[in-house]
Amino acid sequence: MMTEAAKGRILLSVTGFNPQRWHELLSVRREVVLEPQTPSDPSIHYAVVWKQKPHALSNLPNLRAVFSIGAGVDHLFSDPGLPDVPIVRVVAENLAQHMTEYVCWRVLDHHRQGLLHRQQQKRRIWREPAQPAADAVSVGIMGLGNLGRAAARALLMLGFRVNGWSRTGTTMEGVACFGGKEGLEPFLRATDMLVVLLPLTPATTGVVNFELLSKLRRDNALGGAVLINAGRGRLQKDADIARALDEGVLKEASLDVFETEPLPKTSPLWTHEKVFVTPHAAATSDPTHLAGPMLDQMDACDRGETLENLVDRSAGY
Amino acid sequence: MMTEAAKGRILLSVTGFNPQRWHELLSVRREVVLEPQTPSDPSIHYAVVWKQKPHALSNLPNLRAVFSIGAGVDHLFSDPGLPDVPIVRVVAENLAQHMTEYVCWRVLDHHRQGLLHRQQQKRRIWREPAQPAADAVSVGIMGLGNLGRAAARALLMLGFRVNGWSRTGTTMEGVACFGGKEGLEPFLRATDMLVVLLPLTPATTGVVNFELLSKLRRDNALGGAVLINAGRGRLQKDADIARALDEGVLKEASLDVFETEPLPKTSPLWTHEKVFVTPHAAATSDPTHLAGPMLDQMDACDRGETLENLVDRSAGY
Ligand SMILES: NC(=O)c1ccc[n+]([C@@H]2O[C@H](COP(=O)([O-])OP(=O)(O)OC[C@H]3O[C@@H](n4cnc5c(N)ncnc54)[C@H](OP(=O)(O)O)[C@@H]3O)[C@@H](O)[C@H]2O)c1
Ligand SMILES: NC(=O)c1ccc[n+]([C@@H]2O[C@H](COP(=O)([O-])OP(=O)(O)OC[C@H]3O[C@@H](n4cnc5c(N)ncnc54)[C@H](OP(=O)(O)O)[C@@H]3O)[C@@H](O)[C@H]2O)c1
Repeated sequence: MMTEAAKGRILLSVTGFNPQRWHELLSVRREVVLEPQTPSDPSIHYAVVWKQKPHALSNLPNLRAVFSIGAGVDHLFSDPGLPDVPIVRVVAENLAQHMTEYVCWRVLDHHRQGLLHRQQQKRRIWREPAQPAADAVSVGIMGLGNLGRAAARALLMLGFRVNGWSRTGTTMEGVACFGGKEGLEPFLRATDMLVVLLPLTPATTGVVNFELLSKLRRDNALGGAVLINAGRGRLQKDADIARALDEGVLKEASLDVFETEPLPKTSPLWTHEKVFVTPHAAATSDPTHLAGPMLDQMDACDRGETLENLVDRSAGY
Repeated sequence: MMTEAAKGRILLSVTGFNPQRWHELLSVRREVVLEPQTPSDPSIHYAVVWKQKPHALSNLPNLRAVFSIGAGVDHLFSDPGLPDVPIVRVVAENLAQHMTEYVCWRVLDHHRQGLLHRQQQKRRIWREPAQPAADAVSVGIMGLGNLGRAAARALLMLGFRVNGWSRTGTTMEGVACFGGKEGLEPFLRATDMLVVLLPLTPATTGVVNFELLSKLRRDNALGGAVLINAGRGRLQKDADIARALDEGVLKEASLDVFETEPLPKTSPLWTHEKVFVTPHAAATSDPTHLAGPMLDQMDACDRGETLENLVDRSAGY
């Protein structure tokens, strides 16, 4: 067995939030540094990153793997100095649980007419609106991966009809599954409420645009089509969403992510009455649940075992 | 087999809403009248009622059973002329489904800090609040009957901890169950979010008062205790809820029912920022799903079979 001192160091390279808690929890089993000690620091064997500064990882001769804090890895690929080592992403029960809560919350709020009820309350109107049952509503999930599948399971249990769309046409019990470019239009035409849980890749950038939204089914029990995006902001065109809402192509939207984050104060989405904004908060990686499994994988890698949850660099996710 | 003409008539006695759809659907298999044809009309064998006018049922010599439109039967018992015949209430998948949607919607909205997010959006504040996971929150359901159990199942699946309280201490897998008067205080002390799904009886009238609310756990992951009442308005003291919110005993509330309905324009609950009001719309009995099974039960009763979902008159539910 290797002694603690012999274990390679971790470079924790994070921008946009304070990594203190990650530092504490990773330090339990390995030495953690926030910057390389020398320009090409040989003591660093692993990197744990969220939106690392460009080239932060490019000169580390003994780097064995990069761990993304988060299920998405688009933040990594925007670094031109990303070295050619295995990339591991977060696949965790805890993250799927948080995302499932967010998706069910937003789906139920649109389904149960939260906006209308809030408007009625403000005007002290006691009037019961017609309320369809969940099985009159088809929720379509774009991206049927770790998070999309967990959300689909919960939505089925709540009584909704569920459609799924993925690159390869992944199947799932109880879910009407569609795949690839040719599957997209039939998927949209059968969907009343669209939930976006895709990764951001060259193939998915900007897919959630006006043309796509206009294919959703809006002559439905909800009285219109609904968009929920909890994937990544650059999957969507913010301006197209505002236009779709204004032209009646969309009834309402819940957006957790935006083309530019934080959402600029000047964005019309902040004040759009049909839009519900959350600050990229659908499912935040919790180091309490994730640091331990990451350290386990580093140890496994040291022992020559293969890493789990590897990113396919050619697919970009 | 009896011919259609030989079947006893149905008296459809409803106030507060238009019974046209019920009339249509019940008429498919029996003759339906809105008033007795004579003062003591012998042709009426069954009554289907919602808040019937007092004494509407008192002089019907051949009345075999009364069917309540709705799971609750308190509206029936307030009639001093209620005859001593079996009373059947609604127990239906469709109703439990609607109530489960409502409960999950409101629980998730409080849990995921909907009010805070709406306030932040209004002020264009991009700030991610600390967000506990569902398993850090205990939802306590008062009334673990047909509706309470269905809601409990869904909440468990969404990851919440669930407590239940009932008269007899009914048990349920995965749920910490408490029973009777002596079980009430430990139940409340272990509960962060209280969901009321009790029937209104002499024993439950006014139970949701200031004293009860003050026993809920408020030093918790949510930063306060939450009340959700979808049972009946007279289970609660409206004024006590307002006071509990103002004194910090409650953090937020979702109320579907009120002491007086429609909620009077003068009620402070309408404009209380911590209260979410819906107009007794959590789970409305849908004749499309319920009329058929009612007609089936009438036929079964005619054949001498025992009725299902009978109300226990001494217990009042
Ligand atoms: N807002 C938040 O707080 C938050 C938190 C965590 C994650 N996220 C986002 O959620 C995304 C999904 O996470 P995950 O763990 O579920 O990812 P995942 O397991 O990799 O699943 C991705 C899914 O998207 C599909 N997909 C990828 N490219 C596609 C394409 N070009 N066309 C059609 N389908 C495509 C995949 O299809 P196949 O099944 O055919 O491979 C797969 O079903 C992350 O990438 C991240 O951006 C957001
Ligand atoms: N807001 C709406 O739209 C809406 C719609 C439908 C129904 N409701 C309300 O929901 C209520 C519940 O319906 P349900 O079908 O679930 O009723 P149910 O099956 O009769 O269940 C009633 C539950 O309450 C418990 N209970 C009764 N009296 C009690 C007491 N004194 N102390 C403690 N627990 C007591 C019962 O205990 P045991 O298990 O020990 O018998 C049982 O668990 C209805 O009565 C109605 O008022 C509201």
